[in-house]
Amino acid sequence: MNLTILGCYAATPRTFTNPTAQVLEIRNRFFLIDCGEGTQVQLRKNKIKFSAINHIFISHLHGDHFYGLIGLISTFNLLNRNNDLTVYGPKGIQEIIKLQLKLSNSWPQYNLNFVELTSTESETIFEDDKVIVKTIPLKHRVYTNGFLFEEKIKERKLNIEAVQSYEIDKCYFQNIKNGRDILLDDGRLIENKTLTFDPENPKSYAFCSDTIYNEAMLPVINQVDVLYHETTFLESEVELAKKTMHSTAKEAARIALQANCKTLILGHYSTRYASIDLFQQEAKTIFENTVLADDGKVFEL
Amino acid sequence: MNLTILGCYAATPRTFTNPTAQVLEIRNRFFLIDCGEGTQVQLRKNKIKFSAINHIFISHLHGDHFYGLIGLISTFNLLNRNNDLTVYGPKGIQEIIKLQLKLSNSWPQYNLNFVELTSTESETIFEDDKVIVKTIPLKHRVYTNGFLFEEKIKERKLNIEAVQSYEIDKCYFQNIKNGRDILLDDGRLIENKTLTFDPENPKSYAFCSDTIYNEAMLPVINQVDVLYHETTFLESEVELAKKTMHSTAKEAARIALQANCKTLILGHYSTRYASIDLFQQEAKTIFENTVLADDGKVFEL
Repeated sequence: MNLTILGCYAATPRTFTNPTAQVLEIRNRFFLIDCGEGTQVQLRKNKIKFSAINHIFISHLHGDHFYGLIGLISTFNLLNRNNDLTVYGPKGIQEIIKLQLKLSNSWPQYNLNFVELTSTESETIFEDDKVIVKTIPLKHRVYTNGFLFEEKIKERKLNIEAVQSYEIDKCYFQNIKNGRDILLDDGRLIENKTLTFDPENPKSYAFCSDTIYNEAMLPVINQVDVLYHETTFLESEVELAKKTMHSTAKEAARIALQANCKTLILGHYSTRYASIDLFQQEAKTIFENTVLADDGKVFEL
Repeated sequence: MNLTILGCYAATPRTFTNPTAQVLEIRNRFFLIDCGEGTQVQLRKNKIKFSAINHIFISHLHGDHFYGLIGLISTFNLLNRNNDLTVYGPKGIQEIIKLQLKLSNSWPQYNLNFVELTSTESETIFEDDKVIVKTIPLKHRVYTNGFLFEEKIKERKLNIEAVQSYEIDKCYFQNIKNGRDILLDDGRLIENKTLTFDPENPKSYAFCSDTIYNEAMLPVINQVDVLYHETTFLESEVELAKKTMHSTAKEAARIALQANCKTLILGHYSTRYASIDLFQQEAKTIFENTVLADDGKVFEL
């Protein structure tokens, strides 16, 4: 699981900083999470193939989280994309995109699908054989969701020495990795646990965008490996955070602590502060394993 | 009159190039013409004050000409803008912007006005004491206008030596600059031409965005000082230019020649060519005084 930060600064794109967008790679699937203005250029700069992105998740309809979406959808079309694209986001996102495509007379040649979200309860919105994605209902000035990405349990790891010692043919390897026992030609039944090792624990990643401090999310993100929590402010601006329904670094750390997360990544920094290090210092007083996102940074999770 | 090129490349923003946007400064008025994705960052990079821009002209509703508009409008609001802002563009632009502002619950605190264009005849869309702006109807895949900016005739220049020799009081200077004769206390009438020099000739600038080769625009842009004409292709791709309703460099030069322009600026280059110099070389075979736009370039007109 790799996380590439395309943008992690609040409010507006600036000369050297970008609004929220990130790509989560899970076992060769590339999920784009939020899509602020300039995301398509950030994808280029970070050498992420446009054609690899088939699912885009939009947390809420504030500009710094989705103004780059229409441009990306259009550019995909100019590049003669064939793959289907599915956009998951708040109700209304479909109308915004379709209106612009209609008025520009540039309907994509690829299949463009929308999954519009309205629920205030966590729900599964994507699932395949390797990954499941659920919403994390958040509280902001407009309807907002975070997204929980859970890897499914991987196949078991082959114990090469063991399968060779029993002279088992390669054609049985996939069955063995799927957990099956093997009946040898001489009639012996070899138990799967003799032939395999346990798989790595599946990883999980929770993206929580702009939200007021909100303990209601705790059951959904409980024991997540990595929590990305947008913050905007330090505790010195806690009243402003409340008023604008953002979180402070300390509040994000409290969420990470209560949810028993392994790692907390902070982002969505207001540019009012002299250094983003202040966010890390503040969060670490509550939750030690706090790291900072920055544009272009790649985390191997 | 100064022209700052914020972006002049076709189709999509890229790592080092930007889609169409430019700022024309005429006697301390700043007009933003087109607004591709990333325009707000280009304004920052080129040190153009956001608060100076009160009028935005959008040629047509293809993404590379207006996807940066919603972000700029939102950022103006975040920066606590007070000035009115007027957007001139094709019918539909108001619906696109208002839908996004409604769904993001972020209506601007400043007055945001729209002048929606539908005419296929040239019309005056802005006028004050110094500048007049008219549409230039163009032919593209969607409804499209260029824009003609004409400086009004300036006031006459004071002949300082002459007014001093007649001991004329400063309080009469503005009347003199406005062309009035002066009656001295001794009864002599001094003709204005004795006291002033002719003003500089007013300048004019025509911005012609994406369009197929279109002689119908010639009467509107006749004898314009500077013609900016988007091109996209070289003559070797003339069939593709026709099909996509763009112009070649040679075709833009033919327009400049027939309209008796003084200077032709080319832009909107397809990135398929190894060098944009090829556009200049081709245009110069028809119209010698051809120059190339490039992102960040400033022309003193």
